[in-house]
Amino acid sequence: MLNFSFQNPTKIVFGEGEISKLESLIPQGKRVLLTYGGGSIKQNGVYEQVVKALNGSDFIEFGGIEANPGYETLIKAVALVKQENIDFLLAVGGGSVIDGTKFIAAAAKVDDDPWGILTGKVKVTDALPLGAVLTLPATGSESNGNSVVTRRETQEKLPFSSPLVYPAFAILDPTTTYSLPMRQVSNGIVDAFVHVMEQYLTYPVNAPVQDGFSETLLKTLISEGPKALQNPEAYDIRANIMWAATMALNGLIGQGVPQDWATHMIGHELTALHGMDHAQTLAVLLPSVMAYKKESKRQKLIQYAENVWGLAGSDDDKIDGAILKTRQFFESLSVPTRLSDYQVGAGHIDALVAQLQAHGMVKLGERQDITIDDSRQILEMSL
Amino acid sequence: MLNFSFQNPTKIVFGEGEISKLESLIPQGKRVLLTYGGGSIKQNGVYEQVVKALNGSDFIEFGGIEANPGYETLIKAVALVKQENIDFLLAVGGGSVIDGTKFIAAAAKVDDDPWGILTGKVKVTDALPLGAVLTLPATGSESNGNSVVTRRETQEKLPFSSPLVYPAFAILDPTTTYSLPMRQVSNGIVDAFVHVMEQYLTYPVNAPVQDGFSETLLKTLISEGPKALQNPEAYDIRANIMWAATMALNGLIGQGVPQDWATHMIGHELTALHGMDHAQTLAVLLPSVMAYKKESKRQKLIQYAENVWGLAGSDDDKIDGAILKTRQFFESLSVPTRLSDYQVGAGHIDALVAQLQAHGMVKLGERQDITIDDSRQILEMSL
Repeated sequence: MLNFSFQNPTKIVFGEGEISKLESLIPQGKRVLLTYGGGSIKQNGVYEQVVKALNGSDFIEFGGIEANPGYETLIKAVALVKQENIDFLLAVGGGSVIDGTKFIAAAAKVDDDPWGILTGKVKVTDALPLGAVLTLPATGSESNGNSVVTRRETQEKLPFSSPLVYPAFAILDPTTTYSLPMRQVSNGIVDAFVHVMEQYLTYPVNAPVQDGFSETLLKTLISEGPKALQNPEAYDIRANIMWAATMALNGLIGQGVPQDWATHMIGHELTALHGMDHAQTLAVLLPSVMAYKKESKRQKLIQYAENVWGLAGSDDDKIDGAILKTRQFFESLSVPTRLSDYQVGAGHIDALVAQLQAHGMVKLGERQDITIDDSRQILEMSL
Repeated sequence: MLNFSFQNPTKIVFGEGEISKLESLIPQGKRVLLTYGGGSIKQNGVYEQVVKALNGSDFIEFGGIEANPGYETLIKAVALVKQENIDFLLAVGGGSVIDGTKFIAAAAKVDDDPWGILTGKVKVTDALPLGAVLTLPATGSESNGNSVVTRRETQEKLPFSSPLVYPAFAILDPTTTYSLPMRQVSNGIVDAFVHVMEQYLTYPVNAPVQDGFSETLLKTLISEGPKALQNPEAYDIRANIMWAATMALNGLIGQGVPQDWATHMIGHELTALHGMDHAQTLAVLLPSVMAYKKESKRQKLIQYAENVWGLAGSDDDKIDGAILKTRQFFESLSVPTRLSDYQVGAGHIDALVAQLQAHGMVKLGERQDITIDDSRQILEMSL
């Protein structure tokens, strides 16, 4: 096991009806900015529950945070926060709303150009406190310090991390996910699955606790995912997916083990240039990364094949079988796994590779050995 | 899954050499009381590492906190804290030192009789901050808000819990455990194992994440425990046991599922009246609780038999096999599993039952259906 340092301060409040506890979770006397996305919370009853639970607290709203939250949108919220003396942010939505709200929280405390937070030029040393009401299990953003923001003007999608932007609390009510479009449910399952894989499918360091936790999450998503599509209002299924997705990226399973994240980094460029859903990029790229790095991931691929998919046979059979099973799992959730399914062709690869280069993504993977040329080959394998 | 609320603020700093980070973990300008046990830390080099890492910080010492930390000892530390204007506690040791230090932290802020913290008469509303350097993986105290204190004068062993006594940080360096006596290593493995069982072996609520995490911890302890006794200085083995023991009782695996704790509550009386090691009481009682509650725990017993021990056969065979395997596992660690092994006989049961009654332990278990008479029968089965 590798040395590590781990702290996750977010309070998780989980279960049906728990939105009613909002008032007690927000520190008294705060002026709150309620942030949300396209407005689905106004149709599915979540907005009503939130406003009722705020119980007359002082709040204003900022809606319209889009999927892959837009820098151009978020800086408007930053201006509003400063103008209205907001001192608490309440994100109600999925990972995009929460990621965007983390950026607002950090940018509100910065005098320089806030874009520097994403390019690394501005260090985050302070942030507004925030809480979250999660309505879409996927990114784990409700219980971590990560955020990814997209600047449409320059077609850039960049992440930042800070312990200062962990939500103080996250309310996870599985019933808020009943009305999600199936595409979002599927995407969320793929996203959580790949988060686990990025922290699991590397090389062994004798860490059975971490490996067993990761395998548990993968098996839960494999078992519960298809059921959620068939029975959208089955509480336990939704609850298990929601809890698995949070555990997939709250930091715990990745402690003391190597981490990959090549799939994510290459995927961000596909979203930025081609507008593919984040999960779609992962479903396309992960099988290619697995196949391309078959040798350096060999031991963990065999373990994954045995423990997650129950495969037998020769080691090579297990590895090929596990990659195929992974692809089939994504396809079974109606998330296609080829670039051609998204109208991305060989002619687009040069531009994608150029963006990776521009963003310094030149040494990816758990061994930092995926070069620009390797990323090109991974993209070519994904056509 | 049941509704839950979960927050664990402790920062875990894990790995060889990490004690050197102490100075940066303790807030600047604090006057520190360094608490420890019988003095083994002065022989095995841990004390030296801690003092070096404190790097000239202002601290005084309080040693001599015994196994099953004694109320009579701890109130002396409370007096010292008040007299010396201590404002940070640093516990260096195992669960007893950390439990005791939590009591000191709470009692230092109380004007009434501090015994009331343990009887429930005094509510904990404030506590000194504390940190921990763990040297004995077992109780999980390094990352939870629980404490158990023993008053030898009245032969009482009572717990208290408060979110205010979570350690701010816990340093877990597996090499500090190399020099432990084998009895303490064995006890620690049994203790962690039973902590998982108290949160796992109840009744199913469709919670595959929690179940899978628990099964991972149980399998890790089963696999690594005996190896630790054979190769005391094998780093990875010690690291895996240490991490498993922390995860066993940092609150996570018990969220959203029923919990039992009957074995612990009955066991506390055996320690208080007969001086049995905590883990010895658990090793004796758990197999009896499993057998006595065979019907109400039936489904989870079968799951445990299959997933943890890989047993096949009829359901009844699996259940009986799993109970036997559990007993054999404890015995394989040289922890005997019968009261007669500890010179406790049938003639002692009346007094034990009277203490359970006196402490209000009249409705135990995940269904609150273990009455005083049931506890008597469990004790009789354990002779």
